[in-house]
Amino acid sequence: MEIEVLQDRLAKALNAVSRVAASTKAGLPILSNVLLRADDNQLTLTATNMEMATVQYVNAKAKKNGTITVPAKLLAEFVANLPKDNVLITTKDDKLTISAGKYKSTINGILADDFPELPTIDEKEAVIFKINVDIFKEAVNEVIIASSNDTTRPALTGVYFNTFEGSLYIAATDGYRLADKRFVETVKSEIKAIVPTNALQEVIRSISDNMDEIEVLINDSQIRFRMGEIEITSKLIDASFPDYRQLIPKNNSNIIELDKAELIRMTKVAALFARDNGGSIVCEAKKDEGTFSVSAVASELGENTAAMEANINEDGKVVLNSRYLLDALNAAVEGKITFALSGKLAPVVIKNVKSDDYTHIIMPLKS
Amino acid sequence: MEIEVLQDRLAKALNAVSRVAASTKAGLPILSNVLLRADDNQLTLTATNMEMATVQYVNAKAKKNGTITVPAKLLAEFVANLPKDNVLITTKDDKLTISAGKYKSTINGILADDFPELPTIDEKEAVIFKINVDIFKEAVNEVIIASSNDTTRPALTGVYFNTFEGSLYIAATDGYRLADKRFVETVKSEIKAIVPTNALQEVIRSISDNMDEIEVLINDSQIRFRMGEIEITSKLIDASFPDYRQLIPKNNSNIIELDKAELIRMTKVAALFARDNGGSIVCEAKKDEGTFSVSAVASELGENTAAMEANINEDGKVVLNSRYLLDALNAAVEGKITFALSGKLAPVVIKNVKSDDYTHIIMPLKS
Repeated sequence: MEIEVLQDRLAKALNAVSRVAASTKAGLPILSNVLLRADDNQLTLTATNMEMATVQYVNAKAKKNGTITVPAKLLAEFVANLPKDNVLITTKDDKLTISAGKYKSTINGILADDFPELPTIDEKEAVIFKINVDIFKEAVNEVIIASSNDTTRPALTGVYFNTFEGSLYIAATDGYRLADKRFVETVKSEIKAIVPTNALQEVIRSISDNMDEIEVLINDSQIRFRMGEIEITSKLIDASFPDYRQLIPKNNSNIIELDKAELIRMTKVAALFARDNGGSIVCEAKKDEGTFSVSAVASELGENTAAMEANINEDGKVVLNSRYLLDALNAAVEGKITFALSGKLAPVVIKNVKSDDYTHIIMPLKS
Repeated sequence: MEIEVLQDRLAKALNAVSRVAASTKAGLPILSNVLLRADDNQLTLTATNMEMATVQYVNAKAKKNGTITVPAKLLAEFVANLPKDNVLITTKDDKLTISAGKYKSTINGILADDFPELPTIDEKEAVIFKINVDIFKEAVNEVIIASSNDTTRPALTGVYFNTFEGSLYIAATDGYRLADKRFVETVKSEIKAIVPTNALQEVIRSISDNMDEIEVLINDSQIRFRMGEIEITSKLIDASFPDYRQLIPKNNSNIIELDKAELIRMTKVAALFARDNGGSIVCEAKKDEGTFSVSAVASELGENTAAMEANINEDGKVVLNSRYLLDALNAAVEGKITFALSGKLAPVVIKNVKSDDYTHIIMPLKS
């Protein structure tokens, strides 16, 4: 290999690729490496942790094509520190030499033959749709927060892409809360795919300002995101997602409109006093007083209550985990939210006031 | 106690005070508390970890004077989340009630009688000098980096304030490197005081934009810093500081002027390859080539060298710990530094090119 490439482009691509290489849990040393492929006018960088793979394309001038793998983190950090200039990469057997101005390094690598083969998706047998990057980012951030880390229930560690009445929804739940968002207004084919949260987070991290659209490709076992010069492919989680739609309360008698920033502030303050109490806080609506209050149950630390004025139809009270409430409020995008309070034992439903495409449900705690 | 105070002022003061309360290592619960004292037009906040104490004065309107102690962190976080408004604090026995608008909390505290008495400094028997905050900050940051964490040699865990030929110097060393700075041009009395790095770091953190000067008061066993409405008092370290001046080489035959940013870049890059080698890097000056180079000793990872042009009087070579070199370069304030290279076994001396008041010495490693 003999290829010339601009330092800043190479540094940016390596930064993203080395994240995936660093996330490898399998003990194979080559998975910590990045695969470099020089191909005429292009340098292709690839890393995989066997669950997901990322491929980055960088414009370059190759005098001699070829492949090699080298430790991703070392190469990324090295290139990040080089001056903004042309970088020349050459290889000899399993050694890569990289030079820029008066900087020169030789990195010991592993031949590319040993790099695991990446899965490919047959585009003919896949569902393809495109989505604006900002909408993608917002929707994923609204939902992903409700997913679980508990690997004993694999289905809950992902985000469920599913079609319903002609639209595509994404949803996540950890059993204590559930977030659901209408993702794409109309899709033609049926989709039922659980996408690992890691892969979605990597897609979000890889989004940069110059990108407009993400192309998403899904087949039975894999999903691929393509944006700009980056491709991220992930295995789907092979499990059944719970039939979550039945968990969303249909009729809420007591829907209260609240200022989000103020409710966040009140919840944070109450959470301070709820620390030795597992974070339990009491949300209470009082019709006669026209107030919505958040308070911590009295503890060794002291007691706390905060209230704001609100239009209340009927009295109500529910005990929630303050962290779940804060997560839900931080995920909601509008300044005003509705808080549906149907009783001590009924799930609380939080929605944005204007848009109707996002639903966040929190199960109550026993008081 | 019944006192009214502005939320933003109280929040700022509590933030600083709660850092000191949180740093307590003694097991006494009351040391995690802040002592509040309402005194006519002033609220005084005090915290101590028995090594150092911080006192903050906040303008306030007291209807009823009094004292109490409450958990510093809880009160600080609570007040930080309140709306920008007037805050009313009242106490009853060992309970503090704080309210602002529709927020109201009661915090369980401990009576002030149990709070440890703070040491006082007799101003008549102390040395007092004033110093500009920016100069103070710069000088402390240049020196503190060379201090040690090794508590088995207490003298080295502090910064040594000492007079020499009529000027006050501050110095620190961990046995592998040494930093020395002329701190105040002329002082009248002799000073020999080892100040704990923790206290100096707390002073640096407490400096805010509206401060001009720091007043420093030193006696035999304590030091006090007063700036704006904050006072920080610390015990001195009761130990002898090594006679460090004899360690500073007097004559350096090979003084090389180098661009600091470029040398930092070269050192960082070499350090990547020196990881499995304890960070050892080789600095080499070549007269004939007119270059100064930094390279990592060849390792399993590969090898690396980087060079820059420089005026060299004689050939020279030394092996250094890359972290120490980076620390020294980052601490130096000018864009150009001198690197004095007197041979493989002689300490390297780094200075700013223009100002002569800062000296940083790094002991060589055996190559």
